[in-house]
Formats: sequence, C-alpha cells, structure tokens
Amino acid sequence: MKVLMCVPNVSEGRDQAKVDRLADLVRQQPGVKLIDLSADADHNRSVYSYLGEPQAVLAATKAFAEVVLETVDMTTHSGSHPRHGALDTVPFIPVGETTTEEAVAVAREFGRFIGDKGIPVYYYEDAATRPDRVSLVDVRKGEYEALQEKLKDPAWAPDEGPATFVPKTGAVQVAARFPLVAFNVNLRTDDRAIATRIAHAVRHINGGFRFVRAIGLELTGTGMVQVSMNLTNYTQTPIPRVMEAIRSEAARYGVLVAGSELVGPVPLGAIEEVVRHYLQIHDFSMSQTIEMNV
Amino acid sequence: MKVLMCVPNVSEGRDQAKVDRLADLVRQQPGVKLIDLSADADHNRSVYSYLGEPQAVLAATKAFAEVVLETVDMTTHSGSHPRHGALDTVPFIPVGETTTEEAVAVAREFGRFIGDKGIPVYYYEDAATRPDRVSLVDVRKGEYEALQEKLKDPAWAPDEGPATFVPKTGAVQVAARFPLVAFNVNLRTDDRAIATRIAHAVRHINGGFRFVRAIGLELTGTGMVQVSMNLTNYTQTPIPRVMEAIRSEAARYGVLVAGSELVGPVPLGAIEEVVRHYLQIHDFSMSQTIEMNV
Repeated sequence: MKVLMCVPNVSEGRDQAKVDRLADLVRQQPGVKLIDLSADADHNRSVYSYLGEPQAVLAATKAFAEVVLETVDMTTHSGSHPRHGALDTVPFIPVGETTTEEAVAVAREFGRFIGDKGIPVYYYEDAATRPDRVSLVDVRKGEYEALQEKLKDPAWAPDEGPATFVPKTGAVQVAARFPLVAFNVNLRTDDRAIATRIAHAVRHINGGFRFVRAIGLELTGTGMVQVSMNLTNYTQTPIPRVMEAIRSEAARYGVLVAGSELVGPVPLGAIEEVVRHYLQIHDFSMSQTIEMNV
Repeated sequence: MKVLMCVPNVSEGRDQAKVDRLADLVRQQPGVKLIDLSADADHNRSVYSYLGEPQAVLAATKAFAEVVLETVDMTTHSGSHPRHGALDTVPFIPVGETTTEEAVAVAREFGRFIGDKGIPVYYYEDAATRPDRVSLVDVRKGEYEALQEKLKDPAWAPDEGPATFVPKTGAVQVAARFPLVAFNVNLRTDDRAIATRIAHAVRHINGGFRFVRAIGLELTGTGMVQVSMNLTNYTQTPIPRVMEAIRSEAARYGVLVAGSELVGPVPLGAIEEVVRHYLQIHDFSMSQTIEMNV
C-alpha cells in the first residue's frame, strides 16, 4: 500500500484552542488519520503527524496550510525553538511501498501551491534543489528575524514563490525525508558528563555513527541521565547497533543502561531490525505475525 | 477486535489435490483468511491456519470438517505423526481481544456439532473437561489403532458423541489453547549431543522453563545442530529468556548461536516482548509503529 506521512511543525504551542482546532481540521480531512500531536509552550510550537494515501495527504496538507497561514502571526511570535515561519516545516515521509521520489513529487507540488500564494518556500532534505539547502539548520540560519535580509541575497532566492518578505507568515520549509526515529537511552547514574561523553561517542559530528544526532541530558529528579538521539536513517544505522554501542561505552564508566524509549511513531522496519539482531533471525518480517494477517 | 484462529490438523499429507481442495474450501469461507498451510508426506498430515471473527471461524470450521470427515479415510492411513482420527485436532486460538473463555465456547459448540454426527469427540487443553484430558499426548495415547478398545473403557467415554468406534473417521480432538510459538535456535557445531543437552536444560520435563518443549536435532548438511522448541505460553516463558538461556548453555561448550527462526504465524505480543527485553523499553507496544496506524 502507498502511504505518505506528513509532520508539519507550526509556530504555535501556547494557544491550546488554536492547536486543537488545527488537530480537528486534520481529523476532518477525508482519507487521513492523525496519529500524533505534541504542543510545547516553551518552544511555542506544535507538531502534527498524520498519514494516508499520498494524494489524500497532499490535499489535507493544503487545507491545513491555508488555516495556519491565516491564523498564526509571526510578527508577535517568540519561542525557544528555531523557526523561519508560521508553517515552519512540512516534511513528507514515505511509508510502506511509497518511494522517496514519490514523496519528493508531493513535496514539490505542495511547495508550488504555497509559492503561488506569494509566500517564499525553501526545499530541504531529499526535496532540496542544491547541496547547501539539504540541511534544515543551514536553511533556517538566522531564523525568522534574519529572513528579510536573507531574501535580498540571490544565494537565498526561494525555491518557490517571490523573494519577498511576508512579515505575517515568514518562509515555509518543505521536505521529503526518511522517517526519523527518536530513541533515548537512560543510564543508571546522575553524572550528566557520562551521558554527554557517550552522546559524543555515538553521534556523527564527533566521529560516531553516520545517521545519529545525540545530546546528553539530565533527567531531573530521577537520579538518571539520558542519551537523547535522533536516528536519521534507521536502515543504515539501526537501533540495536546504537543500543549496544551505548551499553559498551557506559560499561567503561561502570554504568548500566536503565531503560530506553522510542518517542512518537516508529517505522515498522526499525522494529523488525531489533528482532533480527537480537534473535539472529536474519530474514524476520513482521508479516509473520498473526495480527498483521487479520 | 475479536479474532479467533483455528489450526485444524488433517490426516492427509500425500494427496496434494486433496490438500489443495481443502485450502480452497477455507479460502471460499466468508470472513475467514487462510494464513498458513503446511502438508508433510512423511507425517501424512496437513495443517491449516486461518482466522477471522469467532462466528465466521466456527462456520468455516464446520464446513471444513464435513469435507474432511467425508473424504479422508483412516482405515488406509499411515504416517509417522501420532493421530487419532481423520480430522485429528481442531484447536481454537484466541487472538487480540478474544478471551480464552470465548475460544472455549466456540470449541464446545464445534464439538457438539461433530458429536451430533455420531463421531466421538475429546476436548483437550483449555477446553478439557477433566485433568487427565488436558494433554493431547494423553488423549491420543495408543493412537487410532487403540481407539476401538479405548472407547470401551468408561474412563475414556467421549466428551461429545457416542462411545462408538467409527473406522473411517476415528475420533476428533477439539481444543481451545494459547497460541504456540515454534522457535528454533541453530548452533555453530555439528555435535548433536550439545543440542540435546541444551534442549534438556531449557525444557520443562527435565527441570527447565515451564512452557518449553524442546528436542535436539541435527541439521544435515549444514554443519549445525538445532534446539527445536515449542513455547506453549509466550507471556509466561518469553522468547528472549529462552534465547539467552540457550546462549549461556551453549557458551559452556564453546559454541555460539548461529541464528534462530520463528516457524509459522507468531503472536504480536511475543515480538513486543523481544523489543521490551533487549531494548529495555519496559512499556513498548507495537501500536507505536507508523504502519499499525495506517
């Protein structure tokens, strides 16, 4: 089955009524299912996860975008999370049999729809039009506050829409990307330095696994610390390999893993690899389960 | 959702046309899905796995039984697998939200249907009417060849139907039972004695885990041996606990696990426990996967 997931990030996380209205809007879209919603007042940002057939998701996202662009005002926005616009990021994520190319095609169609409204659009990740726009961090550098100047720079001409600063909406970042796995490992110590050292050992930027981003955190009040990670490609850098690397690094300090967590929707393929690794069932597929055959 | 699985074992595994006709019959039953079929000429036996809502599965199994009892003749049957009748065993297995009690109710209704045809029925496992009939091994002792004498013994009065030997059909064994997990672990040695010793270490009968049945086998031509198991209650004796016990026992002989396999349909809950154990995600549920939300 062809399924596409969309995870728009909206620059509104304090007005609960507004957040809820957007969730209801998604629920009302035909052929689309809202599977996760998280709003954060400190970040002043909300994240919606929904899925369905690609064309249904595209139509739903257009309807969603129109309401966000009309009701969220960047001129009065503040929050601790980096952002470039009211509808800050719109990643389309292939699920099941959907290919990256198909996700890119939907992302581009959505980008043109936004551009046609006179709002600047940048493509990133697999939808990027040039190498210096692949990383969202690069695209969003300077944030909303720097956008007006940035749009005057020909190097930052938008991928869709005019090079015009629209104060109310800012710019929209549109991507196709592999599903992220948010994976956190808790350690039985209150020494945050150990979590930080292990995060550095496993993350790409410091020489670790190619598709791992990681930081060390303190879990206040629990006596534990956490290695908090995003695995950006779970097929190339699978969960068990990261888990065992952390276990081994922690053992150097005489520390054991207390537990771990997967945050938000996880691709089935990431779980299959856990079973393949630990049970050494080299060809395990979840289609072997009774429930997947109901 | 209420789902019931039925896994009838039929005493015919050599006449492929007959095996195929029975599979087609299952496929034609409304609301029922055939998910597995294995026929073995040496055993002269075929095993069908299908599922659906409980009443649909009951109706399908009645239709299936009528054809089996009409077309499979025990008077000419031979095969290496223990058997008591043409429709040898009919276990009903609760899946998802279905309870054991509901599976027992369906098993009893099916048993009465067979008994009304004048064919003796024995209930076993969770459908058993007395402790000495819980084990199929006990119920089937002496096999088809001893059935005529057995039926004369008041201790072996059938649970349904008359105490009359029907040469063509023999007796039908009907159960409700927990889903079995068929789990095999391959060891990197050609010494079958090691597989046998490990099988003895983990299986219930010799002092091992309560819900493990195991034997040691040689995997001819591979240079490996196998601990071949049935886990009869994967919630009480979960896969990872057995896997790690085997790994530890094998290490005593300087032998490593080469791989493992899950044979046939596996309950989702058994897989969830693998993830919980190895990743130490104490509350992991497969409902967290993207695909389970489609």
